[in-house]
Amino acid sequence: MPLSKRLAAELFGTFWLVLGGCGSAVLAANFAGPVHGLGIGFVGVAFAFGLTVLTMAYAIGHISGCHLNPAVSVGLTVAGRFPARDLPSYIVAQVVGAVLGALVLSLIASGKPGFDLVASGFASNGYGERSPGHYSLVAAFICEVVMTGFFLFVILGATDKRAPAGFAPIAIGLCLTLIHLISIPVTNTSVNPARSTGPALFVGGAAMDQLWLFWVAPILGAVIAGVLYPVIAENRRGNSTTLAVD
Amino acid sequence: MPLSKRLAAELFGTFWLVLGGCGSAVLAANFAGPVHGLGIGFVGVAFAFGLTVLTMAYAIGHISGCHLNPAVSVGLTVAGRFPARDLPSYIVAQVVGAVLGALVLSLIASGKPGFDLVASGFASNGYGERSPGHYSLVAAFICEVVMTGFFLFVILGATDKRAPAGFAPIAIGLCLTLIHLISIPVTNTSVNPARSTGPALFVGGAAMDQLWLFWVAPILGAVIAGVLYPVIAENRRGNSTTLAVD
Amino acid sequence: MPLSKRLAAELFGTFWLVLGGCGSAVLAANFAGPVHGLGIGFVGVAFAFGLTVLTMAYAIGHISGCHLNPAVSVGLTVAGRFPARDLPSYIVAQVVGAVLGALVLSLIASGKPGFDLVASGFASNGYGERSPGHYSLVAAFICEVVMTGFFLFVILGATDKRAPAGFAPIAIGLCLTLIHLISIPVTNTSVNPARSTGPALFVGGAAMDQLWLFWVAPILGAVIAGVLYPVIAENRRGNSTTLAVD
Amino acid sequence: MPLSKRLAAELFGTFWLVLGGCGSAVLAANFAGPVHGLGIGFVGVAFAFGLTVLTMAYAIGHISGCHLNPAVSVGLTVAGRFPARDLPSYIVAQVVGAVLGALVLSLIASGKPGFDLVASGFASNGYGERSPGHYSLVAAFICEVVMTGFFLFVILGATDKRAPAGFAPIAIGLCLTLIHLISIPVTNTSVNPARSTGPALFVGGAAMDQLWLFWVAPILGAVIAGVLYPVIAENRRGNSTTLAVD
Repeated sequence: MPLSKRLAAELFGTFWLVLGGCGSAVLAANFAGPVHGLGIGFVGVAFAFGLTVLTMAYAIGHISGCHLNPAVSVGLTVAGRFPARDLPSYIVAQVVGAVLGALVLSLIASGKPGFDLVASGFASNGYGERSPGHYSLVAAFICEVVMTGFFLFVILGATDKRAPAGFAPIAIGLCLTLIHLISIPVTNTSVNPARSTGPALFVGGAAMDQLWLFWVAPILGAVIAGVLYPVIAENRRGNSTTLAVD
Repeated sequence: MPLSKRLAAELFGTFWLVLGGCGSAVLAANFAGPVHGLGIGFVGVAFAFGLTVLTMAYAIGHISGCHLNPAVSVGLTVAGRFPARDLPSYIVAQVVGAVLGALVLSLIASGKPGFDLVASGFASNGYGERSPGHYSLVAAFICEVVMTGFFLFVILGATDKRAPAGFAPIAIGLCLTLIHLISIPVTNTSVNPARSTGPALFVGGAAMDQLWLFWVAPILGAVIAGVLYPVIAENRRGNSTTLAVD
Repeated sequence: MPLSKRLAAELFGTFWLVLGGCGSAVLAANFAGPVHGLGIGFVGVAFAFGLTVLTMAYAIGHISGCHLNPAVSVGLTVAGRFPARDLPSYIVAQVVGAVLGALVLSLIASGKPGFDLVASGFASNGYGERSPGHYSLVAAFICEVVMTGFFLFVILGATDKRAPAGFAPIAIGLCLTLIHLISIPVTNTSVNPARSTGPALFVGGAAMDQLWLFWVAPILGAVIAGVLYPVIAENRRGNSTTLAVD
Repeated sequence: MPLSKRLAAELFGTFWLVLGGCGSAVLAANFAGPVHGLGIGFVGVAFAFGLTVLTMAYAIGHISGCHLNPAVSVGLTVAGRFPARDLPSYIVAQVVGAVLGALVLSLIASGKPGFDLVASGFASNGYGERSPGHYSLVAAFICEVVMTGFFLFVILGATDKRAPAGFAPIAIGLCLTLIHLISIPVTNTSVNPARSTGPALFVGGAAMDQLWLFWVAPILGAVIAGVLYPVIAENRRGNSTTLAVD
């Protein structure tokens, strides 16, 4: 596939990840009901994030490899599964998609009387005062490194040539669901610098001040996994599946 | 397969989509419990809608292609995956199935003492006053266009010849779940004009007045995706899978 | 496989269906938490029932076909997928498994101080006063017929030779989840005479008086689907997959 | 694969099982919201545990077989699917992974102001006073034996050569989800001695006093299933799939 089409796919996919994942959090997590809450809570948000990746991986996996995440692209590069020369353009496409996704989400969310984007948090990530459970910077950093590390480990394993073919989108999408089931209270869950950047640009202020962590920690985790998986799996170029379609 | 059998399958499938999806909302979403709510909330309704499509796609995908949705049939036609000559009859079968599904649901729901079909909303779609979160007409319109657009994008991608075979019903069904996790608060989620028409006919009044949006917006979204996916995916007639079994 | 081994598999599988499905309802549905409810509610019970079938279909599908349900065995027989001569022994094995599953559940549940099996309802099915939402006998009857009919329709379709191989347990298991998402409030959801018989024997009284409906309605629905699916799908003996391994 | 790499995979995988499963319980189960609870409850914890196994089974199934559980390794050995000579080292790797997973979880959890590891229970297993629903020792023992027995039964069946290839991680992971949907109220659900050991070491006191049950009961259940499955399935060495990659 020509690079332009792969970038378009990455842009669309990351748009969907942010619109769907953050959208479920902003629009539906807290919805009250006549007697009990009808909102989807953290369980629903966790499934929404995971399903954006599951659905897109089946839809565009054969076009761009469906990374949708700078940390994923970096980790795959470190593991020798993705050409370094395409890394910058992939990351730009992912961030642009994430920002546009947040833009469309802001248009929809503003249609509700009384909606206050900044006060809502707009599904931005954070630590300390901005963590849903007020987790410290150190806890947030460890959490994002470890979660992204395992995310990449699962991605590298599930797309290994020896893993059963066709199932990787299920494993990878539901891994993102799992990660959210664990860590939404800690950082609102990033593991994806593009996903963090989209909402932060709209919220501004402290959300932007804390954005660095959601670039550094996920990419660090991804690099560690990108080094580690091949060591454990004896994975040489010959017996791995390249996610991206060259 | 002869057209009559394919139409019967579409009718049955759309019946199931409305009975199951709207049925879960009408019968089970709000159920109270002795201490806490036992009802399935929006998470349960989201899974119910998605699973009606997942189950039917495995059950009748080999008969009719399992569209169950006029917007899907239109989008597939635009993308060159479905013959335009079959479009009108498919849409009629889908609407008839949806109306019959709503009819059977009304029979079951009326078996509960005190059930008031109109006051309950009967899982009809709406905007403004009739939106669960009172979202404006503009927000509702944008939401339905974008959600249906991505739905078709996923359908076209997951049924592409280059996508892994057999998994499309999982990707497509869970995409509908995802769409509901995001957008029930906005419009009660349509992305399907037949699904909207069934309950609206029973509720009447304002539900009928607002029905136009749930035909126009989903079909517009589907057309956009039907044009866009082939452009991004270099999809020519030769490398795509036709959903419908001719 | 010899019949004795197939019957053992059916007994084990139906034991698991009742222990897991009814067990989740009895043990976990209502669990209170320190602030909010932690219990699994109807969503969790719906997934539990569906996952008993999904897991067993992968575990024993190659042994007995994994019916676990007299209505399923009857429907498959009507559709020409299962030999009538094995029907009585399959049904006996299923009912025995269901009763033993309810027995083990009663042993576990009684380990909680203050547990009152009869007062709890023990996940038995019912209509009228014994329906969770007090739905009438007529509504309950229609609901069980229609739900079981679509269940069989999905089973027949997903195991059709033309459906993608290997996915039937997912379609069938999640169809049972879907059915519970819709209809727990109506009848506590049966669609399975064996599943209804197990708990009813332990609860006795009115639960036994109402048990007839949960034999008649599911089997009626299954017979209708067993007749209808082949008509729509042009399913002849030659192009269908027999669930049972002869 | 050399044993050292297989052990590294088991260590990593069991680390993930404890960090993810217990982490979701400790960090996210009880989370309060502005109006209604946003926490994931037992449903979310059940999915988290299951998804740790589903994701790892696709990621490392081709390296170590992905047991992540001493009871699983024992059951597979009894059934003739795993070489007894590797059993001790597998169990050591699993326990080490579980302890390290609990260690990292304690680091993250401590980042929340006011977190009290011992008072929280730290997702440890228990009976009597330490059972979430105060279930007796006998009920807890029966429950753990039966749940682990069916877990192994599903593992042995889904990895049988005659079961559809590639789906075993879905069946096995979602079986663990199902088991949690049923039995969290009884014992907080173990079915895995390594998972029980990790948190118990950190909680100490009564959690350590009760740890024996979560070694004895799961292994007993696994042995029973390891004997029973081959009998029912006529499973000889020749027609089974070895999970571990030798």
